[in-house]
Amino acid sequence: MFASLTAPYLAALDQTMREIASDALQQDEPGFGVMLRYALGWVDENDQPFPQITGKRLRPLLMFLCTEAAGGSWQTGLPAAAAVEFLHNFSLIHDDVQDDSPTRHSRPTVWKLWGIPNAINAGDALYTMAYIALERLSESLPAEQVVHLWRIFGQTNLALTRGQHLDMRFEKQDVVTTDDYIRMIGGKTAALLSASAYMGAYIGCADAARAAHFAEFGRNVGIAFQIRDDILGIWGDPQVTGKSAATDIVSRKKSLPVLYGLAQSPTLETLYRQPHLSDHDVQRAVSLLDEVDARTYTEELEQRYFSQAMHDLEQSKSDFKGGQKINAFVDALFQRAR
Amino acid sequence: MFASLTAPYLAALDQTMREIASDALQQDEPGFGVMLRYALGWVDENDQPFPQITGKRLRPLLMFLCTEAAGGSWQTGLPAAAAVEFLHNFSLIHDDVQDDSPTRHSRPTVWKLWGIPNAINAGDALYTMAYIALERLSESLPAEQVVHLWRIFGQTNLALTRGQHLDMRFEKQDVVTTDDYIRMIGGKTAALLSASAYMGAYIGCADAARAAHFAEFGRNVGIAFQIRDDILGIWGDPQVTGKSAATDIVSRKKSLPVLYGLAQSPTLETLYRQPHLSDHDVQRAVSLLDEVDARTYTEELEQRYFSQAMHDLEQSKSDFKGGQKINAFVDALFQRAR
Repeated sequence: MFASLTAPYLAALDQTMREIASDALQQDEPGFGVMLRYALGWVDENDQPFPQITGKRLRPLLMFLCTEAAGGSWQTGLPAAAAVEFLHNFSLIHDDVQDDSPTRHSRPTVWKLWGIPNAINAGDALYTMAYIALERLSESLPAEQVVHLWRIFGQTNLALTRGQHLDMRFEKQDVVTTDDYIRMIGGKTAALLSASAYMGAYIGCADAARAAHFAEFGRNVGIAFQIRDDILGIWGDPQVTGKSAATDIVSRKKSLPVLYGLAQSPTLETLYRQPHLSDHDVQRAVSLLDEVDARTYTEELEQRYFSQAMHDLEQSKSDFKGGQKINAFVDALFQRAR
Repeated sequence: MFASLTAPYLAALDQTMREIASDALQQDEPGFGVMLRYALGWVDENDQPFPQITGKRLRPLLMFLCTEAAGGSWQTGLPAAAAVEFLHNFSLIHDDVQDDSPTRHSRPTVWKLWGIPNAINAGDALYTMAYIALERLSESLPAEQVVHLWRIFGQTNLALTRGQHLDMRFEKQDVVTTDDYIRMIGGKTAALLSASAYMGAYIGCADAARAAHFAEFGRNVGIAFQIRDDILGIWGDPQVTGKSAATDIVSRKKSLPVLYGLAQSPTLETLYRQPHLSDHDVQRAVSLLDEVDARTYTEELEQRYFSQAMHDLEQSKSDFKGGQKINAFVDALFQRAR
């Protein structure tokens, strides 16, 4: 049901993104544009069509739905949707270098194929393309409104780099509080979802105060979504998540349940200090988390942000149909039957 | 004389850049903003004031002079000047990672102090600040004009990454023609000088056709300037350049005279294939370049771009005083007495 809801948006988005990329890369150089097209999931490393689009395009979808819910036509926002998707993919290219990640969407990462210097440059180029895309809004919106969205986009992008900074710092930091963590995902995950909702709504109604409710909704959904991901990273069913059991423990990710557990359980702290975790250690870590009710704590926090998001959505004065569509989107995001 | 000409521009620019940075980094994080302030030459690595501003701020100066020459007030362009300077410094941060360079302006580079992942992120943040700065033009210019400059800025930034791509590719490529090389520096060096001139003129006169002459002037000056730098890298007086003699030969840089020499002299090609160049080899390489008249070839090419730039400047219909100031700037740039 969700797939049939999103198909028309995704087809139009893909076409817009390809048009903008093709215009921008009209003056291409061998080996240059292919890195960008590869990162966007359009081609393989030899610039040959790739059969399947990678990535879920969540941010553009959220934007389209917010434009509609705010009373506008989602097509107006296509260049802005392309911008947030280009931006998201630029951040993944640089992320993968920073995290030393060899694979993304089951394929080698850009740096793994073309080296770190090229990956940095490809990311920079894709970031540029985000701003090139956003500027195209001026073909259908008054310039003043486009400049307003540009300002929001800039603040968002700075929040993203600040969140990324925190994420990298926390990896090396002994003590990270759960408040620190929420601040970090507020930048790294929630800022762009919040901006997508804001921009979408503003494109729909040109009312900054009303769009601010959508922004809050996007931000709180984003935080709840990241917390849910953290829960799945430990207690998720491998059959459903497609990852190994307790994958975040294996990789020693400082996710929210782990941070809570480390603060509550000195035994877990000692265990985490070991240079290597055996299968048994991983199981023991999960038991220790369960002992201190880390799952309950995390789920309650998820629920709090989720409820706040639903409250923000009510405040947004979305019409019934627009609100329903957003609810269907959120359900799909959280893979929940309601 | 040049210093007294530029002092008022530089003081105002510095103030604008600091205001924009301080606003943008109002929500700072320990260890985050300091990397940006350091890269801009304002502080040392402990965030303590640095006594001396690094960098020559050439691009903003060119912009101010073009605004004046086109009949406008240079102060209007301050946010755009801050934008090009932020952009330039962002590109240096990433460049230094890509080139594995440990020092810049006689100080350790950002990656050397804070590591590659942080340097990538600091560059991304500074790039964002460039767009945040540019948006501020909307406080003093009509939104339509600001959007026009945004478009130019985006195209320029894409040209920069394309130039950077070529530069990295050529380092590993056996044969690079002088035409390839001009295309590369057209992106890497000349595109931002061209954009600075264009944007400056457009801010001054809001006439895209007239600004296009300034753009051509900036582009050709930029190419001539890079060629001059290549000449100094081999035949420059160490007393004047502050670098060792034939520094570009020592580092095996594929600069324009070298590319020309490699194409003309099989002996030089053989010499360049050696894994290590002794002092004697370096001297021999310079002699071989002189034998094939590489210096004459390069100087003639410099002169050709320089003359074209002067022709473009005439076409720009600058008033006498504006044209004079630009000439003084160009003289200082090329360190020529005329």
